[in-house]
Amino acid sequence: MKFEVTILGSSSATPVFNRNPSAQLLNCNEKYYLIDCGEGTQQQLIKYNLKAARIDHIFISHLHGDHYFGLIGLLSSLHLNGRIKPMQIFGPKQLLEILEIQFKYSDTTLRYPIEFFPVDNENSLQIFENSDLIVKTIILNHRIPTTGFLFQQKKRQRKLIKDKADEIPMAYYTALKKGIDVELPNGDILKSEDYTTAADAPRAYAYCSDTLYDERYFDTIKNCDTLYHEATFTHDLLDRANETHHTTALQAGEVAKRNGVNKLLIGHFSSRYKTLQMLLEETQSVFENTELAVEGKTFQL
Amino acid sequence: MKFEVTILGSSSATPVFNRNPSAQLLNCNEKYYLIDCGEGTQQQLIKYNLKAARIDHIFISHLHGDHYFGLIGLLSSLHLNGRIKPMQIFGPKQLLEILEIQFKYSDTTLRYPIEFFPVDNENSLQIFENSDLIVKTIILNHRIPTTGFLFQQKKRQRKLIKDKADEIPMAYYTALKKGIDVELPNGDILKSEDYTTAADAPRAYAYCSDTLYDERYFDTIKNCDTLYHEATFTHDLLDRANETHHTTALQAGEVAKRNGVNKLLIGHFSSRYKTLQMLLEETQSVFENTELAVEGKTFQL
Repeated sequence: MKFEVTILGSSSATPVFNRNPSAQLLNCNEKYYLIDCGEGTQQQLIKYNLKAARIDHIFISHLHGDHYFGLIGLLSSLHLNGRIKPMQIFGPKQLLEILEIQFKYSDTTLRYPIEFFPVDNENSLQIFENSDLIVKTIILNHRIPTTGFLFQQKKRQRKLIKDKADEIPMAYYTALKKGIDVELPNGDILKSEDYTTAADAPRAYAYCSDTLYDERYFDTIKNCDTLYHEATFTHDLLDRANETHHTTALQAGEVAKRNGVNKLLIGHFSSRYKTLQMLLEETQSVFENTELAVEGKTFQL
Repeated sequence: MKFEVTILGSSSATPVFNRNPSAQLLNCNEKYYLIDCGEGTQQQLIKYNLKAARIDHIFISHLHGDHYFGLIGLLSSLHLNGRIKPMQIFGPKQLLEILEIQFKYSDTTLRYPIEFFPVDNENSLQIFENSDLIVKTIILNHRIPTTGFLFQQKKRQRKLIKDKADEIPMAYYTALKKGIDVELPNGDILKSEDYTTAADAPRAYAYCSDTLYDERYFDTIKNCDTLYHEATFTHDLLDRANETHHTTALQAGEVAKRNGVNKLLIGHFSSRYKTLQMLLEETQSVFENTELAVEGKTFQL
């Protein structure tokens, strides 16, 4: 099952040097989930040939503009392009007010329904579930209420071993795939493990932006396969990071290391860094399996 | 005196094919005036190496998103980049409410003052004047209240003829440049026209987007040097243009022709046109001195 993320923006605060503000597109089993939506996200989707119409769920971490100023434009374009299926949006409760006032003054009645789910910013909660995944919030520590999101694949059924399955009636498949042994009328037992192999282990992707380094959210992201974490500054600017409630590249590496993740992606880079190699190396000095989450890159999760 | 406009967006409604929504940067005597501000305008300014910090006046024609969704991001970036000088914004009165709600929920107090001037949408009025130009509104006919803007250079003083001016005391320059003849103590007359030449004729630029073809605004734009006019559709889609309160390329040519303008720029192209030659040729069939107002192009006005 496909589980990958494409980076649409890696810049903090303002767009610079062809870096756009935060946005990521998660593809889970060919369904699209948009995570944050900075200004120009719809243009980035066009640029990377990703169909905005396929997005059915949008998750907004907080109400700093570099994480949501592109949302109203994306929603408007979907309307103008004829969308009729619902859009589910998860984010701070004031976001709906911001959207509605703009639709009101442009005299726009959307052709499609927005289903808005205000996100609690004090407790990590499950906020979404479908047949493919579960989404939980991560309570981050920023200047204004901010939640990250944990995307957990659901446990999949065991996979039939085709050659062996051909020998037995299809009626038994469902039970065997669920791991249940089947007793035949003659008393013989078909063991699930003889006819199926284990499914891929469900994977988890954690999205953490923006936040101070803060142990209180570690429990929520522990042992996830891939962690995206902001790394706005190099560690020589720790004071600046603390003051603005951001994380340094070194600290991002620490978060990954202390929480047993497999892979770390860093992003949300300050406009003071024209090139990013220094940030990458700083993080890798603590946690080697780190990559830069830059525009247009797709990561298998 | 410099009087030129750079196009930042030529697309109607949604961004497509590398075309951005509406925005133009007017440079009058090295001062920057921004006209409309669709999503991604700040990225376009970076792309064309135009310093957003130099903009001191912004004119928003109406509250359809393709004309203002980029404003909040631009204002936020200026704040984050340390701006302290005031920004004057002219536009529909509800625009301020839209901006303020977003600053409120992001807990942002701008470092610089916004001076907001709500624009009357029923009467063409002078809304701005400085030493270089006067700005008047053009009452357009769109689905929601919409004003275009007429930028008129002010009449300049006559220019001294250097060789001749060297022969007389500087004390007389001011009067002569104003066209006033000077009587010397001995009764001789210094004629202004002997010591100065006429200033360049003041020029005018009219910005008309979005609107139905409607004679009621013709008086305001009559005889302007350069007219920018929307030309969303080709004329075979006249019904669609009427229904959506837009103009066809043919009609834009008619507007230019009937109002005695020198040059016409057309823009605000529907996403149905991948290439624009057809629109240009249709307009030129009525008004030959027409150019496509596309991204990155600068026109001397």
